[in-house]
Parts: sequence; structure tokens; C-alpha cells
Amino acid sequence: MEMLKKRINESAKIIGSEIVKVDSFLNHQIDVNLLNEMGKEFKARFANKEVTKILTIEASGIGLACITAQYFKNVPVVFAKKLEAKNLSNDVYESQVYSFTKDKNYTIRVSKEYIDSQDKVLIIDDFLAMGNAAVGLINIVRQAQAQVVGVGIAIEKGFQKGRTKIEENDVKVESLAIIKSIDNGQIVFA
Amino acid sequence: MEMLKKRINESAKIIGSEIVKVDSFLNHQIDVNLLNEMGKEFKARFANKEVTKILTIEASGIGLACITAQYFKNVPVVFAKKLEAKNLSNDVYESQVYSFTKDKNYTIRVSKEYIDSQDKVLIIDDFLAMGNAAVGLINIVRQAQAQVVGVGIAIEKGFQKGRTKIEENDVKVESLAIIKSIDNGQIVFA
Repeated sequence: MEMLKKRINESAKIIGSEIVKVDSFLNHQIDVNLLNEMGKEFKARFANKEVTKILTIEASGIGLACITAQYFKNVPVVFAKKLEAKNLSNDVYESQVYSFTKDKNYTIRVSKEYIDSQDKVLIIDDFLAMGNAAVGLINIVRQAQAQVVGVGIAIEKGFQKGRTKIEENDVKVESLAIIKSIDNGQIVFA
Repeated sequence: MEMLKKRINESAKIIGSEIVKVDSFLNHQIDVNLLNEMGKEFKARFANKEVTKILTIEASGIGLACITAQYFKNVPVVFAKKLEAKNLSNDVYESQVYSFTKDKNYTIRVSKEYIDSQDKVLIIDDFLAMGNAAVGLINIVRQAQAQVVGVGIAIEKGFQKGRTKIEENDVKVESLAIIKSIDNGQIVFA
């Protein structure tokens, strides 16, 4: 998606050869116009799929998921929670996820009330790197015996293993911008 | 806002005399249609105000803030972060917030890059109870010497001190549903 690549080129901060910070439009400040264009593009890429629910993970996936849902007949969004919250039901699907960014394991949880076996779930997230969060979400959908329609990602680090891990689960991945490498502070798109 | 009150009556889970869980449409699963109606209503209530940025706090405020931003000429959304994240700049505005739900203090942070003294900031959040998160966000906007246009809340617990605390800061509060009391498992709206 050219608009997103252009924005990454203009605004991303690159740290070393692996870290791309997009806090100015996606992960801290959010450009809602850009999210709308991304939502339209996800709809185009999954046009032939029936979707009954969009699943994401807190926090930075939520905005993108909500805006995207508008292009899928306003299907509900469910966001997996990362921390144990007092007032979340015990009746939950869980998965363990290792975060490289934070160098720790955490549990992600979705209440059993919000995914059922009839659901056709599109997973949306802002970043794909090692794929641990996405695979955790796929796990949760499958615990519910629901169908994973696909995974839609804003920015994929193509030089890491995320795509392979998702495809090993027989799930289609659509990324709007794939970073092939970071070469002397310059982003090379796939 | 009648549509929201109706939904609370139909779907909220009431625990004791103080806890209202709206996980089925706002805090875990998100009804994007309802968010759109809420966004329109915030626009109506702050119609005469110039807004250059919407500020919220992760996680469950983000969806509402993004959808609402569409009714304010797609102004950017900024969400305050609750935890220390490795790749957030050190150059941040901070405020300490006590959470009754989790019974602990946490720090909220916004990068100095995303609010400046020219900004007119509308604060949006899903819940108002004791007002600590909202006051923390007001603090952050004022550290940036920006203007707080107002605070827009989906559901206010009118029997707690949140509104008073915000108004003590000379900030206008608009809540779409105000719960006056919870009486024998029944919600009484103001």
C-alpha cells in the first residue's frame, strides 16, 4: 500500500537494523485518515471472505481494528487483554505470548462469551515481527472452534519469522507494508 | 444519550452496588455502530469548540477516541501509555494515576512530540469514576501548555467524585450516560 509506505519513509524512526518506530502515526499518535485508508485496503484484500468478528490485541491494534470494522459492515471488534484485570471473567480463552520488545512472557485472554464456534474471525494487528501475538490470537480463535479468516497486518518486518509462523498454521497473511530490510538507516520494502 | 442507556440496561452486568461491566459492547468486545453514534454525540456536545487533537488512555479508550475523531475532521488521536515501554522516548509528559479497579498506582505518559502549546485537546474516555485518569490527562495537556477543550465520557458513575475533580480543574465534562445509583441490581440514570 503506497500511502502507508510513503508515510513510513517520511515519518518512521529507525533504530539500528531492526527497530522501526511509527509512534507518530500508528503506535502512540494515530492518524485516523490513514487508518481509514488501511481499513479500505483490508476490505479489498479480504473482499471474498465472510467476516463476523475482528480480533485484535491491546493496545495499539484497537484503533486500526475499530476503523477497519467499519468496512466490514461494522462487525464487532474484540480485543484480547494482556494483563490480569480484576473485572474480566474467569471464563476465558488464554494463550501465552513472548514479547521481544518487552523481553517477557505475558498471557493474552479473551472471554469465551465473545467468540463462538460460528464466528469467522479476521485478526488485525499493527505490527508483525516474530508472530507470537498473531499465533496466540489464532490459538484463541481455534480454542473457540471458530474459523480464522486471515491475518491483516499494517507493517510486517519481512526479515523476521512472523509470516512463516502464521502460514504454518494454514492462515493467510495480508500485510499493507512489508519491510524487507533496513540498510544503513534506509528502509527497503519487499 | 438514550441509545447508550438502553444498551447499558440490556447488556451491562452489575456487581454489587458500584461495579458496572460493559465488556459486551465497550471494554472487551466493541460495538462499532454504537461507537459511531457516540462519536456523533460528542461532536454535537462540543460543536462550538475547535479541537486539534483527541487524547485518551490505553486501552479501552482508544477505539472510542478513533471513531470519535472522524466527526472532528479526522484530527489525530494520541493515547497515553500506562506502562514503561522500551521504545517510548524519554522525552515525555508524565502523570501519576491511582487505579481503584486495580488498586495500584501507575504512570501515564505522552511523548512531548505529540502535544504542543498550540493544541486544543479534547479528552475522551470510556468511563469516569473517581476521575484519576481524566485528571492525569488534564495534567499532561497543561504540562504541554496546551488547552483542554473538555472531557467527553461514555459512562459516568455519577455517585463517585470524578466529575467534581474534573470541574475543580475548570474543565467541562460531557458524559453520554450518567449512572446516578445502582439500586438492588437496577441502574438508575441521572
